Amino acid sequence: MNAPARVEAGFRLSEVDPGGTPGIDKSDAEREMADSAEAFSDLQERLFAESRAGGTRAVLLVLQGMDTAGKGGILRHVVGLADPQGVRITAFKAPTEEERAHDFLWRIERALPDPGLIGVFDRSHYEDVLIGRVRALASPAEIERRYEAIREFEAGLAAGGTLVRKVMLHLSRDEQKARLQERLDRPDKHWKFNPGDIDERELWDEYQAAYQLALERTSTPEAPWFVVPADKKWFARWGVHRILLDALRELDPQWPPADFDVDEQKARLAAS
Amino acid sequence: MNAPARVEAGFRLSEVDPGGTPGIDKSDAEREMADSAEAFSDLQERLFAESRAGGTRAVLLVLQGMDTAGKGGILRHVVGLADPQGVRITAFKAPTEEERAHDFLWRIERALPDPGLIGVFDRSHYEDVLIGRVRALASPAEIERRYEAIREFEAGLAAGGTLVRKVMLHLSRDEQKARLQERLDRPDKHWKFNPGDIDERELWDEYQAAYQLALERTSTPEAPWFVVPADKKWFARWGVHRILLDALRELDPQWPPADFDVDEQKARLAAS
Repeated sequence: MNAPARVEAGFRLSEVDPGGTPGIDKSDAEREMADSAEAFSDLQERLFAESRAGGTRAVLLVLQGMDTAGKGGILRHVVGLADPQGVRITAFKAPTEEERAHDFLWRIERALPDPGLIGVFDRSHYEDVLIGRVRALASPAEIERRYEAIREFEAGLAAGGTLVRKVMLHLSRDEQKARLQERLDRPDKHWKFNPGDIDERELWDEYQAAYQLALERTSTPEAPWFVVPADKKWFARWGVHRILLDALRELDPQWPPADFDVDEQKARLAAS
Repeated sequence: MNAPARVEAGFRLSEVDPGGTPGIDKSDAEREMADSAEAFSDLQERLFAESRAGGTRAVLLVLQGMDTAGKGGILRHVVGLADPQGVRITAFKAPTEEERAHDFLWRIERALPDPGLIGVFDRSHYEDVLIGRVRALASPAEIERRYEAIREFEAGLAAGGTLVRKVMLHLSRDEQKARLQERLDRPDKHWKFNPGDIDERELWDEYQAAYQLALERTSTPEAPWFVVPADKKWFARWGVHRILLDALRELDPQWPPADFDVDEQKARLAAS
């Protein structure tokens, strides 16, 4: 039941098996998620409560992965376990004209979680060094600048009290093919399919190389990356759940003390 | 298992028992919620899918009630059953200076759900005719204007494809006292207590009268109110779940057809 490991110096994405389930089997993973539901809920509520008393801490979970890697399932089955009042999900699509007129971090800053919340990015500023690199949407010099800009940006978030955790859902090329096939076979899945998904698939190796670079340039102690094998959906869900739970435990939020005289209010209530 | 009834002409709030559980008992309510989880999830995903294909429909659920009526529990246990990707919750607090500089509906318009989403308001523009009336925060003429403005605003939403459902969680004065007492007795609940809650409690009858007026002036066929007895949390949760489920069933969203040639894409995928 080891938690997923951080990306450290010397990490090689190509050495991670997308079909692996290191450290846990399916029944233990499901039991662990069920058993920790109450602790998770309690920690989330404490974080929220802390913010109501002036606390400024928050969590930001960044989700990245190739198409069909399971981001939607993570949102539904892992983030969905949280109290929705304490969650802010932002899905980033191709930037709008207004967004393109600003620095690539502009739209990211506007989507950051308020104090007390768990913010979740479904895709993120990392697209700007992934598709941005693979499709040459920006110059090589600009892509280089972005790694540094991201490190500084995320260090600033951490310094401001936002715990940043970044997850790459690591899918195999074969499993992606099977999942895209299912989207084409089932009419109730057609809406999830986009012909552009195959265009991106044809650049698989370029994307893996772009991920390798992004991971090594931007995994920092204060904003680490985790590569979670994602061919097995149950494993990916357990992995992300565990990363989120560990993040909340690291924050260790406490119930804020009353900012009123409890006995005085009890007397008022009794008389009301 | 009758669904909660709409507020129609002649409705008297004072005749509704906040402790009642009309039409269902606890075990049936819990079973019905569990049994309909899949149907609910399916309907929600269809609504979301429809919007991805250009659909403009959405759902807006307005939650109102006295302090401790259980809005937070509804968000956690009823709205929390939905896929969080398809939900947008907005909690309205006392208006900021910027918000006060605009018409009372300005901040509401900015929080409306995008197509495909279930928007949920935790308090709403109705505060402007509830606390607004009880505390005389606006002139009587302005309060009168607001009922009409709300009717027009909500009729516009409905015409634009947003199904509007409004719920008053109807709590008794005694049950509120017990719930406030619990917040004072338990240190882990202190953060939820505000001395102002007792100030509002002392105006109980005025609030009930303000609700009666708001309900009769603004329950319309296209944006009906439902008064849900809320002393029993399980009943309130079942009631709101049922209202939301019925709303989705009324919309009856369908999987959008593919906007691409499925066979052509299958061939591309096979070759990739």
